[in-house]
Amino acid sequence: MDRRSFLKNSALGGAATAAGATLAAPAYAQGRRTLTLVTTWGRGLAGVHDSAQYCADMITAATDGQLTVDLKAAGELVGAFESFDAVASGQADMYHGADYYWVNQHPAWAFFTAVPFGMTAQEIQNWYYWMDGKQKHHELGEIFNIKPFLAGNTGAQAGGWYRQEITGPEDFNGLKFRMPGLGGQALGRLGASVQNLPGAEVYQALASGAIDGTEWIGPWADEKAGFQEITKIYYTAGFHEPGAALSLGTNLDVWNSLSPSHQAVIENVSAAAHSINLAQFMAENGAALERLQSAGVRVLEFPDSVWDAFGAASQEIIDENMGDELFADIANSAMDSMRKSSGWIAKSSGVYTAQRDRVMGG
Amino acid sequence: MDRRSFLKNSALGGAATAAGATLAAPAYAQGRRTLTLVTTWGRGLAGVHDSAQYCADMITAATDGQLTVDLKAAGELVGAFESFDAVASGQADMYHGADYYWVNQHPAWAFFTAVPFGMTAQEIQNWYYWMDGKQKHHELGEIFNIKPFLAGNTGAQAGGWYRQEITGPEDFNGLKFRMPGLGGQALGRLGASVQNLPGAEVYQALASGAIDGTEWIGPWADEKAGFQEITKIYYTAGFHEPGAALSLGTNLDVWNSLSPSHQAVIENVSAAAHSINLAQFMAENGAALERLQSAGVRVLEFPDSVWDAFGAASQEIIDENMGDELFADIANSAMDSMRKSSGWIAKSSGVYTAQRDRVMGG
Repeated sequence: MDRRSFLKNSALGGAATAAGATLAAPAYAQGRRTLTLVTTWGRGLAGVHDSAQYCADMITAATDGQLTVDLKAAGELVGAFESFDAVASGQADMYHGADYYWVNQHPAWAFFTAVPFGMTAQEIQNWYYWMDGKQKHHELGEIFNIKPFLAGNTGAQAGGWYRQEITGPEDFNGLKFRMPGLGGQALGRLGASVQNLPGAEVYQALASGAIDGTEWIGPWADEKAGFQEITKIYYTAGFHEPGAALSLGTNLDVWNSLSPSHQAVIENVSAAAHSINLAQFMAENGAALERLQSAGVRVLEFPDSVWDAFGAASQEIIDENMGDELFADIANSAMDSMRKSSGWIAKSSGVYTAQRDRVMGG
Repeated sequence: MDRRSFLKNSALGGAATAAGATLAAPAYAQGRRTLTLVTTWGRGLAGVHDSAQYCADMITAATDGQLTVDLKAAGELVGAFESFDAVASGQADMYHGADYYWVNQHPAWAFFTAVPFGMTAQEIQNWYYWMDGKQKHHELGEIFNIKPFLAGNTGAQAGGWYRQEITGPEDFNGLKFRMPGLGGQALGRLGASVQNLPGAEVYQALASGAIDGTEWIGPWADEKAGFQEITKIYYTAGFHEPGAALSLGTNLDVWNSLSPSHQAVIENVSAAAHSINLAQFMAENGAALERLQSAGVRVLEFPDSVWDAFGAASQEIIDENMGDELFADIANSAMDSMRKSSGWIAKSSGVYTAQRDRVMGG
């Protein structure tokens, strides 16, 4: 008898003799376990770390500590971009991050954060929670031994910070710019030298001149990151991440070892985190933008010629990946859902907010 | 020693002798209880009943049945509009419904479903999950012995079904129309005879001519209800419910008797339900609208003169209630949050979707 079997048979077996059928429960209570959660975020990084911490705290609370989630921020156990391998291999139990960081593992991971000219935050929820999105996420995850769920969303990301105003697509030629995922690949088609840096390294890269510009998230998180200290040129709407989702991924062996009730807790906490995190960004961005403007930041929009170039490059990147069967399957599922739901949103809340602005003042 | 103390001391006390500290758990496991959930929805009513059922199933699953939620649809235990009193008094443990049904209890309940010219689904989430919304909901609930959480959302509701085309605000004079909440009160200012019928009764009322028209939810739920069999005139955008939230309310004494972990489950399942339910409606509405059009339904928008009249009447209704301190406190909190977050949403996803339509085709 090995040590583990021995412990199991002595403590629980002994109690069973005295207390009979009631003893299923204490066996479970003794099955308390700590799950290590690694993240792609520096500790305290505005909004994104918050969402990871929400998941950790709420899974712990809702299971009464039977699952105690121990959050290790980027660099505390593994580096930000090592989170995926750490969880796939079982070195860590869970990650919280943006799945488009894993496009080198498979480009279809991008659909579970954002693709250029893709879905808004509401559209990705429609796909994920009611059409095929969640199922596709799980099919992709299974290949890598991961059970992922959406668990955060930044909303539509800002176009980002530039040292010079952008007057046409030619201004991207030779520009050293930070942008992850397929959006970054599209920007490369405009001649930009694109880098994929984790959040914790972006400020320093911009300050030192290692990059000429960066997108990060939106006014509130960008202000917290301090980019306005380096440059005053800020583009609000962007093409690259129209509703960037974050994910909580669990090692599949760990997931399969959990009780159905603990799986239900993780799934519901993840869905709650998606919505609450999106609310956080959307609630904070407006006031933050006003503060940035008061601090001298110029708030600009890209001209149509730049949007046209973004559109052509984005289409190129999607098209080039369509030869991969899995990518095509997920892309078609996502685009089909988007097509079906975007029209109604424009006709209902789109028309409503336009009328509200007209009647009540914008 | 009473019977309860006896049981406690015999079964658990006996086991404790043998198994020591592990014995907190079986006491808890033995504390399984059934919570009766009454709803304002007929059984199976598209989308809204689904959200109530999601809450019931997920609370049961995530607590491993320690809380087993037994859903009683409208009329199965109490009538739709008796749900509130049933839960406040303790006759039932929980309700799932639209809180604006309780405006006769206090008009501020409307803010936790929708107010005319108020918040979209995203804006209400910003207020609820990140600003003061949830706290205000709980303050209001406490007065009535209820602990409420948002737990569903239909999105922006359609303008509704009419027997005649609406060409100006004067067409509402004498119109018998179904519309609950403060929106219905506003419509009354245009001379409409407004009725507040629960969902299960609306079809029959419209078919019999007891009402001349009705709003219900949106294309998908309206199609399921079958209103297109009665009239073919449908207005898409409406002023009255720009993002109608649904709530799960628990009797406050019951809530206070629950463990913190079970409270965390209810709170997270409710937030997940809000988001998933909204996704359901948003994913289904587009295709449903196309089907309605194929079936000969004329899809119209109100002219600006009607929106102007809606706006003036809505402002009147809000203003008249501002003398009530609690109403004013909640209204100011909601409107302040809406003002802070709406600008950014227009600048980011608003500009993005307009560019996406322009570049990629709408």
